[in-house]
Amino acid sequence: MAIRVGVVGAGVMGADHARVLSSAVAGAELEAVSDADPTRAKAVVDRHPGARALASSEDLIRDERVDAVLVASPDATHGPLVLACLAAGKPVLCEKPLAPSAEECLAIVAREAALGRRLVTVGYMRRFDPGYVELWQRLRAGELGRAYLLHFLHRNAVAPPYVTAATLITNAAVHELDIARYLTGREIRSIHAVSRRTADLPATSAPQLLILEMDDGTLVEAEITMNAQYGYDVRAEAVCERGTISLVAPHDVAVLQAGQGGFPLAADFRPRFARAYHDELQAWIDSLRTGVPVGASSWDGYVATAAALAGVRSLETGGPVEVTLADRPALYRRS
Amino acid sequence: MAIRVGVVGAGVMGADHARVLSSAVAGAELEAVSDADPTRAKAVVDRHPGARALASSEDLIRDERVDAVLVASPDATHGPLVLACLAAGKPVLCEKPLAPSAEECLAIVAREAALGRRLVTVGYMRRFDPGYVELWQRLRAGELGRAYLLHFLHRNAVAPPYVTAATLITNAAVHELDIARYLTGREIRSIHAVSRRTADLPATSAPQLLILEMDDGTLVEAEITMNAQYGYDVRAEAVCERGTISLVAPHDVAVLQAGQGGFPLAADFRPRFARAYHDELQAWIDSLRTGVPVGASSWDGYVATAAALAGVRSLETGGPVEVTLADRPALYRRS
Amino acid sequence: MAIRVGVVGAGVMGADHARVLSSAVAGAELEAVSDADPTRAKAVVDRHPGARALASSEDLIRDERVDAVLVASPDATHGPLVLACLAAGKPVLCEKPLAPSAEECLAIVAREAALGRRLVTVGYMRRFDPGYVELWQRLRAGELGRAYLLHFLHRNAVAPPYVTAATLITNAAVHELDIARYLTGREIRSIHAVSRRTADLPATSAPQLLILEMDDGTLVEAEITMNAQYGYDVRAEAVCERGTISLVAPHDVAVLQAGQGGFPLAADFRPRFARAYHDELQAWIDSLRTGVPVGASSWDGYVATAAALAGVRSLETGGPVEVTLADRPALYRRS
Amino acid sequence: MAIRVGVVGAGVMGADHARVLSSAVAGAELEAVSDADPTRAKAVVDRHPGARALASSEDLIRDERVDAVLVASPDATHGPLVLACLAAGKPVLCEKPLAPSAEECLAIVAREAALGRRLVTVGYMRRFDPGYVELWQRLRAGELGRAYLLHFLHRNAVAPPYVTAATLITNAAVHELDIARYLTGREIRSIHAVSRRTADLPATSAPQLLILEMDDGTLVEAEITMNAQYGYDVRAEAVCERGTISLVAPHDVAVLQAGQGGFPLAADFRPRFARAYHDELQAWIDSLRTGVPVGASSWDGYVATAAALAGVRSLETGGPVEVTLADRPALYRRS
Repeated sequence: MAIRVGVVGAGVMGADHARVLSSAVAGAELEAVSDADPTRAKAVVDRHPGARALASSEDLIRDERVDAVLVASPDATHGPLVLACLAAGKPVLCEKPLAPSAEECLAIVAREAALGRRLVTVGYMRRFDPGYVELWQRLRAGELGRAYLLHFLHRNAVAPPYVTAATLITNAAVHELDIARYLTGREIRSIHAVSRRTADLPATSAPQLLILEMDDGTLVEAEITMNAQYGYDVRAEAVCERGTISLVAPHDVAVLQAGQGGFPLAADFRPRFARAYHDELQAWIDSLRTGVPVGASSWDGYVATAAALAGVRSLETGGPVEVTLADRPALYRRS
Repeated sequence: MAIRVGVVGAGVMGADHARVLSSAVAGAELEAVSDADPTRAKAVVDRHPGARALASSEDLIRDERVDAVLVASPDATHGPLVLACLAAGKPVLCEKPLAPSAEECLAIVAREAALGRRLVTVGYMRRFDPGYVELWQRLRAGELGRAYLLHFLHRNAVAPPYVTAATLITNAAVHELDIARYLTGREIRSIHAVSRRTADLPATSAPQLLILEMDDGTLVEAEITMNAQYGYDVRAEAVCERGTISLVAPHDVAVLQAGQGGFPLAADFRPRFARAYHDELQAWIDSLRTGVPVGASSWDGYVATAAALAGVRSLETGGPVEVTLADRPALYRRS
Repeated sequence: MAIRVGVVGAGVMGADHARVLSSAVAGAELEAVSDADPTRAKAVVDRHPGARALASSEDLIRDERVDAVLVASPDATHGPLVLACLAAGKPVLCEKPLAPSAEECLAIVAREAALGRRLVTVGYMRRFDPGYVELWQRLRAGELGRAYLLHFLHRNAVAPPYVTAATLITNAAVHELDIARYLTGREIRSIHAVSRRTADLPATSAPQLLILEMDDGTLVEAEITMNAQYGYDVRAEAVCERGTISLVAPHDVAVLQAGQGGFPLAADFRPRFARAYHDELQAWIDSLRTGVPVGASSWDGYVATAAALAGVRSLETGGPVEVTLADRPALYRRS
Repeated sequence: MAIRVGVVGAGVMGADHARVLSSAVAGAELEAVSDADPTRAKAVVDRHPGARALASSEDLIRDERVDAVLVASPDATHGPLVLACLAAGKPVLCEKPLAPSAEECLAIVAREAALGRRLVTVGYMRRFDPGYVELWQRLRAGELGRAYLLHFLHRNAVAPPYVTAATLITNAAVHELDIARYLTGREIRSIHAVSRRTADLPATSAPQLLILEMDDGTLVEAEITMNAQYGYDVRAEAVCERGTISLVAPHDVAVLQAGQGGFPLAADFRPRFARAYHDELQAWIDSLRTGVPVGASSWDGYVATAAALAGVRSLETGGPVEVTLADRPALYRRS
């Protein structure tokens, strides 16, 4: 029996998830779509016969034929929608962030902990990217010893209009915060954000450097740049006791032309992480069958938001800011 | 409604296909498995609840709940099995080669042509490898002009025991023959196989060079080596009027260790072409729904076998051998 | 007429310079060598017929047949030796640092400024490395717009025994400080050094991150690690308005073996920068003929030392430290 | 005492050699230049004070202050000039080819053998390219076992006007013939040249494939293309028993721009082999001091010409042609 999925939000991400669920994930069916704009929901279901456009997210979440919910609506709606899924006892994959405020995140954590079982997955899709997965596996295997330093880099080709030094952290760098915890298995002790720019550089191009100190002393340095122009570029290098392991930007061909040798770069995050999004959905559907949760938990979602907000405070204070966390409920303890 | 697939042959390849079909392909179900050795068929279905072990390939092909057949049994059985599928009017994905002799291949072609619709796909999986697909797309787009020369390279880490100069062509180089036609869209006019070795090199390590002349004068040079020791390595470079396009060996990470920087190599064809096998199966299942055939046709399977046998004759004569083909039925003409 | 060079210091670096001067630099002759240990000086001249071992650096500097002096003796001796060369009116190429203290450096600057002509070159050899030179040329040409962010990386395979957090800056990171100024053409406004380590990491392995802010707001991030084990690794990436330019570690061959593809890494700085040392010496000899100074001036040597000492203070204070400089004499102003 | 060199031929190559000799080679002096066109000789010496323009190559070769001769005049003049140098008892570095005909080459070999000492070096400069040198060293060390197959590739960006299928072998592929012998230490048993082109490809763009069989059964496959458009590209891969070693195209920086990552390619052979030409001249000057010959001997020059002419015959016959050689005088036997 296929898992019947309802997708809340029929924008670019929601439509993409609907397409992948209905055409490329084993064991899943696209059952329903809702959107604040009904014409968008209709446009998506028209491309996927068998799926229904529902009038509201409430309808979708309580629909009997919806086994599981994928939330891809605007960030501010994530918290209430996830709580509604928990109230309905339905598994939910929520696009990041879990919620924009730590308080909302904690309310979800508390509710799920009270239920005593994990229903929430947060869509930090990098945890399913083949490169990050192989990096994580090699770190876990310890083939080069422990990692004591990580370098991350995250460059958008073109800055979205809403980019400010603060949203650059909460929207973009938050991926680095999550993946730093995932790769090291440690919590973030402090975060220091440095942003400078030369006089002639547009504000949206100002690069940001983050320095994270993990709770065992591991250092993480991350660059986030939103207007790199040349392409979308995400890198990671783990410096271990006896060597280093780095992500390789996916490219299937190399091209020699016009005096230059090399390879094509992704234009934005969607081609770059297409495989990650696919594998995330397949793993999520599989996890609903096996009962073994995968991906970032609501606790992870809470920590990412809390650490990002500490980063925003660091921008204001100019120095490192400690990341203080609520108590971690037993449900989220690592075995 | 999912396509219910029966897999004939429960060896390494058959078991792999069964696993992918039942866990990673949207719209497919593993319905049945048969094998000359019933314990092997049982071992596979035991890992995939819902699948049935059938007593024979005959039973499987005529089973009412089998919508489509995947043939992964020994090469010599391919021809009769594909003919049985045609007799049953069922789509079949047959592992390469379509059959070891040109006569058997032509019998299939004739039978399918008489049916008037394409039911046969031959598992030349490279046509679904993301690298070859992108290479093909770029050649079709003509961004660097026409390709007038191709270099191929195909190295196994460890030679299988059955390798001889002849089977190296019919088993291994046959992939190059198919992909040369796929990438160029031209037929092979002649094939010249050169095999030499130094006195101290084991016979199974003797490299082979193939020079193909396509029917428009395009040259294809291919090296096939079966005992390269260092890893499995498949390459292709298309030399075009204004530049070249090359495959990049898939690797998600780079590693610096012990005085060496670089990336891990695949050990054999299965990890190297895992994505190709997956995408082939997904595309095949999709094609059964849409009715638009994908992959190598039985005609392509015939030509690959015929060209490989011409290569074997070239080994004997020491010079180039023309590839002469039967008439191509209208069913296989390119639109 | 060849320039006759006297080399002070016959240790590893001095012996290397003597060898290159006498065998691979056009227009130069190795005239004399001195060392605190006369057997070392003798060992070097024995390998280079025609060169004389002199009893002391004083003898060497005032020797009539020594046209120019190369100082490769211990760091603490650099200042007095360079002053002696200035007193003798002889050009001197002094290995970095110019002197360990800012005061000594300033004394040299003042003396040379009083002479009114540049006689001192400081051996920041990276300014002659083909990679840094091409990076500098491309930045100057502005083909990708202005650089607003630089990443540097400097990893030793094995930490020398004297390494502490402070000497890591004054001995190793000082190269980054000089090259940051060279590549950007700007002064360093502030330096922030961050050093952390996990409990189980040897102190000599603790990585250090430096964040430099240049006086126009350009950011420079640098990692310095002294015990990387896997090899010697120096990198630089300049992030410009429309793209990035990176150093490529020199390697003339690639090797595929044992399941790994890649290229050999340098074991330490000498093979990595062999070409830089050679080109530095050739350019220095050429500059003595043309009268056009090349390389780092004594002012540059002073700034590198001053900035490194500011970095050491940053380690103590935990925050960024401003780099305050004396007035720059007209002799060192950029045209 | 510097070696005083006279350069015959003041075209592009001669002028380049004159510049390198006078500015970048230790132990050498540019003493004299001659050219059939006296204005060209004058133009070169005007750039290098101290050098004299001589009226003829005869004058230059017999000039008392010319210790050694570098021949960079048109190919047809090489043979007589080298013989004149031998008659004068002067060492000569002759640009390739030694002479266009095997007979002329053999006359030089015979004359030098009669003298009983090696005075002739042929300018197959790849033997001094750092990449080929490292490849040769690694093959000699045998770290990956014996090489049993080599792939070479030689692409010019833009075909010179004189290019025909035959001159492509005698002018361009001759480098591959020499380097095949250098890398393997074996003679060429046979050569098979294959040239085809598609109807719409300009004749000067027709690629050529060479298959060499060395006298121990080692295979060498080489592509030569003269109109590759995208850049100058020379590659070599040695396939050994346990791995492969490949040349890496020299590049000091990588560039990310406009959706493409990669590195700049050389425009033609001069930047690509600038280091090889320099190192060749330095090694030649050094060898004149030590008396130990370096580089390709006149015997090597003879074999390269003979093998190239066999390649031309192969183009005519369409099959492999044996390379038959005269007896090798003792002077050229490998120790």
